[in-house]
Amino acid sequence: MAERPRIGVVGGTGAVGTVTLDLLRTRGYEDVRVFASARSAGRVVGGSTVEEATPEALARGDVDLFLFSVGTSASRELVPHAVRGGAVAIDKSAAYRLEPGVPLVVPEVNGRRALANDGIVANPNCCAIPLTCVLKPLHDAAGLVRVRVATYQSVSGAGAQAMERLRSEPQEEHDLRMDWSFDGEEFEEESKLRDETRKILELPELPIQATCVRVPVMVGHAEAVWIELEDELPADRARSLLEAAPSVRVEEVPSPGKARGGDEVHVGRIRRDPTVDRGLALFLAADNLRKGAALNAIQIAELLFAGRERAAA
Amino acid sequence: MAERPRIGVVGGTGAVGTVTLDLLRTRGYEDVRVFASARSAGRVVGGSTVEEATPEALARGDVDLFLFSVGTSASRELVPHAVRGGAVAIDKSAAYRLEPGVPLVVPEVNGRRALANDGIVANPNCCAIPLTCVLKPLHDAAGLVRVRVATYQSVSGAGAQAMERLRSEPQEEHDLRMDWSFDGEEFEEESKLRDETRKILELPELPIQATCVRVPVMVGHAEAVWIELEDELPADRARSLLEAAPSVRVEEVPSPGKARGGDEVHVGRIRRDPTVDRGLALFLAADNLRKGAALNAIQIAELLFAGRERAAA
Repeated sequence: MAERPRIGVVGGTGAVGTVTLDLLRTRGYEDVRVFASARSAGRVVGGSTVEEATPEALARGDVDLFLFSVGTSASRELVPHAVRGGAVAIDKSAAYRLEPGVPLVVPEVNGRRALANDGIVANPNCCAIPLTCVLKPLHDAAGLVRVRVATYQSVSGAGAQAMERLRSEPQEEHDLRMDWSFDGEEFEEESKLRDETRKILELPELPIQATCVRVPVMVGHAEAVWIELEDELPADRARSLLEAAPSVRVEEVPSPGKARGGDEVHVGRIRRDPTVDRGLALFLAADNLRKGAALNAIQIAELLFAGRERAAA
Repeated sequence: MAERPRIGVVGGTGAVGTVTLDLLRTRGYEDVRVFASARSAGRVVGGSTVEEATPEALARGDVDLFLFSVGTSASRELVPHAVRGGAVAIDKSAAYRLEPGVPLVVPEVNGRRALANDGIVANPNCCAIPLTCVLKPLHDAAGLVRVRVATYQSVSGAGAQAMERLRSEPQEEHDLRMDWSFDGEEFEEESKLRDETRKILELPELPIQATCVRVPVMVGHAEAVWIELEDELPADRARSLLEAAPSVRVEEVPSPGKARGGDEVHVGRIRRDPTVDRGLALFLAADNLRKGAALNAIQIAELLFAGRERAAA
């Protein structure tokens, strides 16, 4: 597997799946097969003929690692078959993220957790990935006390059909939306962002609240963040820590447009929060289809490939 | 003046000026003249021929009240001439807002300040108006300790040309922008929102920080707000206070699209901030051209008309 891993992309025709195939090709992976629903089977995507993602096809044992980019219910149904066939499944859906024993991994933050898997590694929510990339070095330096986040999430996070709807909607009708399931107090996206950030940072009690908003931008998520810290951390020192952090780029004023198509989490507007002692405000942006989804999953896969190489050596 | 006030709209061809004329007509004002730059003079807008806004024309004394919807430098130049001619000027620009002695008025919040003017009443920033409408009843009930705001501001706030640019920009290129002047730490819009909120609420030391973001929505601003209070204020009680507040409508999930074309500030997502004691989170939206600008200015004018009626009675 280490030398020439056999990779399967499940959901290869969707918004994230397409980017996954593109990134795999760019990174030189050759043995890549594409799986999707019966509706898409037979189509040719990125030079590969799409195979139907049946339980039998996934359990056949001829793929080392599956990258799943399908909805939560499809993941629940199909991932166990891939694992039964002996493959590792990296799952982008919310199906397994909070399951005890399933590692939820951002390689730069808690990559060492990836190898301790029982066949499933979960890929976090598209806002939790860039947020934890930025929070981790600040927490290590000064201890997080509380976090508040207002998100600006692009429509591609809702999938290819939502992108089509936005394209066909007159500009005058574009609106902010909160298009997630709602319990009357909190949107599911907000509880995901809270619970996943806690799990990734291994801070199960971290006080954190999010207000999640969909904006009529096609690709690229942004987050306005306020944090409070245990210890004094001047804004300049926070900026230096973030400049040194892996996969983070410090910019004066980040935006989804600047982050689009790139691999890094852009962070800027790093400044004191004058309303409180030991508070900082910042603004971050990332390509939600890449670092927020497909790229992060591939980076997890590469941790596994490298781990097995080391084990085999 | 009280019976049939003679009104002049300066900047009547711009994004806010057009809405101002529309609202004046709807409210039954008949003696309305339109002034604009030489470039627009002679055009017919809403049935009126546009007159050039020269110092002489504004100082002529044949208008009781001017509504100014022009840029800050044009206001600085022209407003004194209107006042010299004996008119009251309600100015929408930032030119006079923070000047000591000039009332900065949101009728529902500090309307009693409007009559104590020396010829100029300033109309606040489009985000400060809805924010103070929502903060005022909460402050009166429980005392504001600190406020944090992340804004989602529509492109119409940047004027008619910015709206045209957004219309002609391909959807794929739409981005979040921070298109205000920047001192390296804070955007001018953020300092306006802080300083004006303090002045309107008459809380000159209120700890408040804003992150202001332009979103590719045409009309309607939104704000994600976190507040902390001196006294306990359960979310249910906050909701009741806001339901009783003038010009405020409580909605489960507000959005710019729902607020567009209406006169009220929509507020919702009113919930406890679990990261802190006595904290609340909420989300608000308002039509920035109406309550955020033109409507608020007309409501100020109506306070003045009513005040003079009372004085004359």
